[in-house]
Amino acid sequence: MTPLSPVDFLRRAGDVWPQAPAVSDVSGARLTYAELRGRADRLADAIRGAGVERGERVAVLAHNGHVLLESHFGVPGAGAVLVALNTRLGPDEYAYILEHSESRVLIVDPAHLPMIESILPALSTQPAIVLIGRDYESWLSGSSGPGMQPPDEENDLIAINYTSGTTGTPKGVMYTHRGAFLNALGDTLTFRLGPESVYLWTLPMFHCNGWCFTWAITAAGAHHVCLPRPEPAQVLAAIAEYRVTHLCGAPVVISSLATHPQAGQARFPWGVRAAVGGAPPAPQVIENAERMGMEILHLYGMTETYGPSLVCEPQGDWAAEPLRRRAELSARQGVRTAVVRQVRVVDPAGEDVPRDGATLGEIIVDSATVMAGYFRDEAATAESLRGGWLHTGDLAVMHADGYIEIRDRAKDIIISGGENISSVEVEHVLLDHPGVADAAVVAVPDERWGEVPVAFVTRAQGSEVSEEELIEHVRSRLARFKSPRRITFTDLPRTATGKVQKGVLRERGRSAHRD
Amino acid sequence: MTPLSPVDFLRRAGDVWPQAPAVSDVSGARLTYAELRGRADRLADAIRGAGVERGERVAVLAHNGHVLLESHFGVPGAGAVLVALNTRLGPDEYAYILEHSESRVLIVDPAHLPMIESILPALSTQPAIVLIGRDYESWLSGSSGPGMQPPDEENDLIAINYTSGTTGTPKGVMYTHRGAFLNALGDTLTFRLGPESVYLWTLPMFHCNGWCFTWAITAAGAHHVCLPRPEPAQVLAAIAEYRVTHLCGAPVVISSLATHPQAGQARFPWGVRAAVGGAPPAPQVIENAERMGMEILHLYGMTETYGPSLVCEPQGDWAAEPLRRRAELSARQGVRTAVVRQVRVVDPAGEDVPRDGATLGEIIVDSATVMAGYFRDEAATAESLRGGWLHTGDLAVMHADGYIEIRDRAKDIIISGGENISSVEVEHVLLDHPGVADAAVVAVPDERWGEVPVAFVTRAQGSEVSEEELIEHVRSRLARFKSPRRITFTDLPRTATGKVQKGVLRERGRSAHRD
Repeated sequence: MTPLSPVDFLRRAGDVWPQAPAVSDVSGARLTYAELRGRADRLADAIRGAGVERGERVAVLAHNGHVLLESHFGVPGAGAVLVALNTRLGPDEYAYILEHSESRVLIVDPAHLPMIESILPALSTQPAIVLIGRDYESWLSGSSGPGMQPPDEENDLIAINYTSGTTGTPKGVMYTHRGAFLNALGDTLTFRLGPESVYLWTLPMFHCNGWCFTWAITAAGAHHVCLPRPEPAQVLAAIAEYRVTHLCGAPVVISSLATHPQAGQARFPWGVRAAVGGAPPAPQVIENAERMGMEILHLYGMTETYGPSLVCEPQGDWAAEPLRRRAELSARQGVRTAVVRQVRVVDPAGEDVPRDGATLGEIIVDSATVMAGYFRDEAATAESLRGGWLHTGDLAVMHADGYIEIRDRAKDIIISGGENISSVEVEHVLLDHPGVADAAVVAVPDERWGEVPVAFVTRAQGSEVSEEELIEHVRSRLARFKSPRRITFTDLPRTATGKVQKGVLRERGRSAHRD
Repeated sequence: MTPLSPVDFLRRAGDVWPQAPAVSDVSGARLTYAELRGRADRLADAIRGAGVERGERVAVLAHNGHVLLESHFGVPGAGAVLVALNTRLGPDEYAYILEHSESRVLIVDPAHLPMIESILPALSTQPAIVLIGRDYESWLSGSSGPGMQPPDEENDLIAINYTSGTTGTPKGVMYTHRGAFLNALGDTLTFRLGPESVYLWTLPMFHCNGWCFTWAITAAGAHHVCLPRPEPAQVLAAIAEYRVTHLCGAPVVISSLATHPQAGQARFPWGVRAAVGGAPPAPQVIENAERMGMEILHLYGMTETYGPSLVCEPQGDWAAEPLRRRAELSARQGVRTAVVRQVRVVDPAGEDVPRDGATLGEIIVDSATVMAGYFRDEAATAESLRGGWLHTGDLAVMHADGYIEIRDRAKDIIISGGENISSVEVEHVLLDHPGVADAAVVAVPDERWGEVPVAFVTRAQGSEVSEEELIEHVRSRLARFKSPRRITFTDLPRTATGKVQKGVLRERGRSAHRD
């Protein structure tokens, strides 16, 4: 039985579209599929030549670009396991991950070298350092061998992705060749990818291997266009220059695009499909995006599901709805993709919650695209995958139409006087105020109520909205007990992947409360 | 690890698009995805209720329609194996297949009942007979249980497809849930299917389960439109009425469409993608189709590969070529799809033939979408799958651009004076003559040369082309020894699936030679 491997996608693209553009770095490099395949073949040979054995790890620390892309094929094509490192971590985090993964090779952008050199002495496994743009090129050109070879076992690991959780040490999420192949094919169906597609990399490839788009775009024979950083003016210029048809990104990337001064003039009549994961897109963002010719698709997934598991599949009759209602419908996390067997929202007894749009339960997932487990962490793996279901820790409701909507992370729920308060619900109401650019709500301990909500808000440019006004705004929309007890105006602390660090805010909220 | 099964596609479509049209029979029936799912659930329950055990066979003898479609989900959703029977077989063939498959149930259209009743007494296993439109409906409405359940093992059989080979008894090609899931996903990528797609069933669903489009269209949440028979005027009317976006068919279906009198006026400005398997489309057919707004995609596959394995993927620069050249390029069988690992053209020593467009070799396939084997025929299975590759028996050349072009079936090659003659090559030259509508070339024994080619030709309407003219026509194009020694004007005998019965012609040629 022939095993599944995304390595085959690049071997095929090199055969079928040898002269077609595979990857264009906005910085200048441009490779055809024959060239990209050739480089990945040489990379596989170089990794084997360095003595890396089947199943051993090779780390890469680089911005989006053809080197990081080719490593998604060359590293597993040598039988090794890719560890794509977030470029925004600190020295301790890199040290932890390199040590925990026992990476044998580290392919690194020279800009990060001084920091990496500072942590090497303390590592018990010394990775071979290969500098991109320098020894990397001679390493490739000096290699020889059979090139990429897909593994004999489809459940061999293809990648380990370290999550930068908001608490605790990073966990290494294990991806297999099989799971990556399947989620990549799922991406091609969800987004209707084909060889005519042009994909702009605003999402980092080190984030769930770019939700498997590294492999999906290659399976489709489409064109990867790489931006090192998603700066809005550059993104808008790149969409126009390359006639981009697809992109993915964090909510802040899409909203900064849609509200950028240049967006007023921008028009993309060929149609751009933009997938957003994380916070739902606001009505204003949807409206601005549509005016440009951009359709926004809201997604849900996590590192443990190889990226997208739910997609807010637009229904035919939504188009007739007014913008505000359409935004509400599209803001939900949605329904499972074609490669996911089942997604349920269950109460603590494991029973499905009613389809009432109100009862909170935990999202659990049964899919061939659920991680193999956490690397060298059997306890966390067993806990997360208990009963054969991935327990996401995300709290959601099930709507009457079968669409799932997340209300909160399990650990972000606020319990006040015995009532559950969804911090996300309160945040949505705050964000709906024109004076608010960003908002986070957390629990602080309270003698009488157990916990009470407090908010941290970033004002919109030029706004002077007051604490009282905002509290009144929330009270006008929600049950009184859900209104923040206090509002602090501040920038929000975020992790390297853009998640709000609620732990930090909880600590701040606690200190302020004690004062 | 979650197993793969296409049964999940209908469970999902029922959840995600409950009110969307799932299947419309041109005869009148129209089901939403919630209804189709409900019927397939009841069918699964009914099959279990009839005592059919996991892995036992359930046969269906019906034209394209919602019953045959729902059986593709309800039968495997009960853990049973679908045997979809060709509607054009004779009593001996049905008796052989029902006996060989030991089908426990036969769901049958009443039109076929008398013939089925005539063969039942001789069968050692008596299938329970369920008449469509009569006891079938009460069977479904009387059933209860958990509905469709995907199997625990993805390598469980989902279907056995009996091939109507040109010689010998039918062989039962075994499909697994895994293989069907993967080829269906491959179809969605090859054809860019989505929930907005409308698929017209001109290809019989009993032919490789409709090249897995039974499952692919459902995975995409698209609309199945069923015609019991692909009559050209009805096909053209259905395309217009339902705004069909995709269809597949035998070459004769597509060419009869493109040359139909009503095709001159027909225009499908929304774009129709028509996939053709078998003989390549002629330039005139391509031109007529394009004028209507229909893009023709040439495919290659066989029952043993779940349908499509190669597709003649159009390259961007072909559009600029003149029609004749474009037709030549598009007439090739092409390159592997994204779910196929490797397709090679090899000489008898197993070495790849050069990419010269001339050297003949056999097509061999390595893919997760290769059959599990022939049911209860270990010898044929071992022979066909030797060395882990499917040996197709099709002889082809490899072009410089990596595209494969079939020249002949291995057993149809003619060896004359030590030289190989491709019967397909000679047929192509004959078909290129305006006076020829259909042509087949076979070998007859010859004392001096070993074998010589003789031709059977159907004249185009109104043509009076002579044997001498046609022989001269071939001589003007090909080596003299390739020209038919003799030409007989006749209709060509075909199998139930439309293949020319070369064995019959060889016998006729031999008799004529002896006279």
